[in-house]
Amino acid sequence: MKKYHEILLKESKDLWQAILDHPFLTLTAKTQIPDSTFRIWMQQDYIFVREAIPFMAVLLAKSPLPLRSNFIQIMVGLEKELELFRKNAQDHGVILENLQPAPICHAYIQFLMNTAYRQSFEEGFTVLYTAEKVYLDSWMQVKNNLKGQSPWQEFIDNWTSEGFRQYVDWLADTLDQLLQYKPERELVAIRDLFRTTARYEYLFWEMAVKEEKWVV
Amino acid sequence: MKKYHEILLKESKDLWQAILDHPFLTLTAKTQIPDSTFRIWMQQDYIFVREAIPFMAVLLAKSPLPLRSNFIQIMVGLEKELELFRKNAQDHGVILENLQPAPICHAYIQFLMNTAYRQSFEEGFTVLYTAEKVYLDSWMQVKNNLKGQSPWQEFIDNWTSEGFRQYVDWLADTLDQLLQYKPERELVAIRDLFRTTARYEYLFWEMAVKEEKWVV
Amino acid sequence: MKKYHEILLKESKDLWQAILDHPFLTLTAKTQIPDSTFRIWMQQDYIFVREAIPFMAVLLAKSPLPLRSNFIQIMVGLEKELELFRKNAQDHGVILENLQPAPICHAYIQFLMNTAYRQSFEEGFTVLYTAEKVYLDSWMQVKNNLKGQSPWQEFIDNWTSEGFRQYVDWLADTLDQLLQYKPERELVAIRDLFRTTARYEYLFWEMAVKEEKWVV
Amino acid sequence: MKKYHEILLKESKDLWQAILDHPFLTLTAKTQIPDSTFRIWMQQDYIFVREAIPFMAVLLAKSPLPLRSNFIQIMVGLEKELELFRKNAQDHGVILENLQPAPICHAYIQFLMNTAYRQSFEEGFTVLYTAEKVYLDSWMQVKNNLKGQSPWQEFIDNWTSEGFRQYVDWLADTLDQLLQYKPERELVAIRDLFRTTARYEYLFWEMAVKEEKWVV
Repeated sequence: MKKYHEILLKESKDLWQAILDHPFLTLTAKTQIPDSTFRIWMQQDYIFVREAIPFMAVLLAKSPLPLRSNFIQIMVGLEKELELFRKNAQDHGVILENLQPAPICHAYIQFLMNTAYRQSFEEGFTVLYTAEKVYLDSWMQVKNNLKGQSPWQEFIDNWTSEGFRQYVDWLADTLDQLLQYKPERELVAIRDLFRTTARYEYLFWEMAVKEEKWVV
Repeated sequence: MKKYHEILLKESKDLWQAILDHPFLTLTAKTQIPDSTFRIWMQQDYIFVREAIPFMAVLLAKSPLPLRSNFIQIMVGLEKELELFRKNAQDHGVILENLQPAPICHAYIQFLMNTAYRQSFEEGFTVLYTAEKVYLDSWMQVKNNLKGQSPWQEFIDNWTSEGFRQYVDWLADTLDQLLQYKPERELVAIRDLFRTTARYEYLFWEMAVKEEKWVV
Repeated sequence: MKKYHEILLKESKDLWQAILDHPFLTLTAKTQIPDSTFRIWMQQDYIFVREAIPFMAVLLAKSPLPLRSNFIQIMVGLEKELELFRKNAQDHGVILENLQPAPICHAYIQFLMNTAYRQSFEEGFTVLYTAEKVYLDSWMQVKNNLKGQSPWQEFIDNWTSEGFRQYVDWLADTLDQLLQYKPERELVAIRDLFRTTARYEYLFWEMAVKEEKWVV
Repeated sequence: MKKYHEILLKESKDLWQAILDHPFLTLTAKTQIPDSTFRIWMQQDYIFVREAIPFMAVLLAKSPLPLRSNFIQIMVGLEKELELFRKNAQDHGVILENLQPAPICHAYIQFLMNTAYRQSFEEGFTVLYTAEKVYLDSWMQVKNNLKGQSPWQEFIDNWTSEGFRQYVDWLADTLDQLLQYKPERELVAIRDLFRTTARYEYLFWEMAVKEEKWVV
């Protein structure tokens, strides 16, 4: 079976490296990330994880029968992830009520939802794989370079856990199967969505570090 | 708070009575339902319950934030209901593989999905409430009139359980809240969807009793 | 280029013949169709043509860029078709206000919309082709067997016109192109949708002849 | 009838003023806008207008029956607007083939589509009104302050024409009617969408002036 996820990753090597080298991750690994920066990320990612649930739901509605249970499980998992945010928010005094999405957070969510509604299941699934793969690789990067104890250890642990790795492996395998018999012309859209998702991920780190807000 | 669900039920009294008096239910209560009839219903309702999951998913995507967890729980519950079908299918030698939906089963599913995609959340929720309320009342009717032991006892128990009643109560309360501030003109569509859903439920019993299939 | 539309038609020969032999068409050709029957069809088909516009719209949103203009033109064409209904309704004293869809008309519309929202563009396009091809062939059948002058001549002329034939040819060609590179496994869903659409078309004639209404 | 569109405009006065004062508009009025800037805007707005057609289509599918024709007409109008872009692109040697959307253009389109698919018709319509109202006011601002002859006169004329003004008036009236009976709690989402749309419009001018591209 052709390993499409590897081809996609290979083609976007530069972009992937830019993500892994992003100051948000390197500073977090050095435990030098400013509290204010991490808090912004926490708030915005809380919104993002919350809004990932409707994304999964709309994907589920298009998914092949055997994958539906998986999507229900993913949603149950996202609810647990929200708990992790709420627990850490309380520990660190971060407010999670009445948050407004920053521009890139808003845009990224619109992109997820529009893709799930409008595009084919395979295309939506590509976005899902890419987003989760970025998270696995990004937090593994932090974990592997971590100096000392991070105040944000639970987040690092969450996205580098054995369970999360297996989930991302399953996504990769399933993506490969879904794309196996696709004609080349349909893979153009897949490539584009892979790249666009990774770009939004990069811009999400940027937003936190630069404290980007709506200018008006 | 105005009890809209009671108004809806009152307005459709005749239709509701026609459902409760349907031969499928009276024969099941008398334990005189032909095996072949019940098997057809089991197969078609298995398809229907299975396809109710994508319906819930698309509704979830439009649901107010506080209701999202409920929808995830409903989907988890539907998966357990599918297990109930599979267990009983095995016990009774009913085949659940490669089923084709009968016309009314196909139509009803299309109606659920189109409503969830196209209409407002409140409208989709009305369909959900109606379908579940028909099931509670229908199977309560069977339970209350049951002569002796039914070979289909587990289905009767499932939709008359305390848990299912509480779920339908919650649906009724939530519907009332959702419709509380709706202008009268929007309630026209709500009434129409309530009635249409109940009609499809009636036709579903009909299909089982008359063994309706695609004519060509 | 493989002519998929011909394969689909060939595989459903029996079903297609059942449509062409339907009493609604044979009686219309013999100018023996009861006025009341034709009026019911007119009312229900008016609803159907009207609701075909949102179907085209949701398809447009998923369509490849070069086809978008075609869909706008199709919608403009459907509006003209509605005019044809209104003109003939007036001529024949048929009421087109406050119509309620018969069960099969309701179901068929739900099927169109759900397919457009949920399935791939190619799948939605298959439904479109099938529905229009049934109309071309059905009304050609009437035209070719017509005894004398029909009071419903304008409808016969509408769906046997050179313009309509060219449109259906274009749909067939475009479908062939869309399916050209599809793997065999995806064609299973295409076949299924082709057949389901033709079945709904058959049941639509049935509904008119049998004056089928909601039983409750 | 309460004039909701005026309330919305009043509440966002600061934001509206920021849009009207944007350098893109003031420089265009002074005929000092760099050619390169205007070309970027032209390319990105071409993508945006093109993608506004699927947005209108998905809105049409949710629109009340009497508004459907309007949406078809709007789409026909957008196709003419695309012609205007193509004509001017040719005149000025601007390439419109194989364009990639800049981040804000991509994000804004996702926002349009997700709103049309997921939100109520009234909410989608609010986004439509806001986007068109920004264009009317922005280009009127240019027209009213125009020094001499602009090389981009046809664009100025397009969005300040009598026809366009009447269209935006119709949007305002229709919005007022749609919101007339809405409970206050539903207007919160309307306000939010109005503001978000205006913000995206502001960022669109920003993107052109700052030549914003994907950073990776």
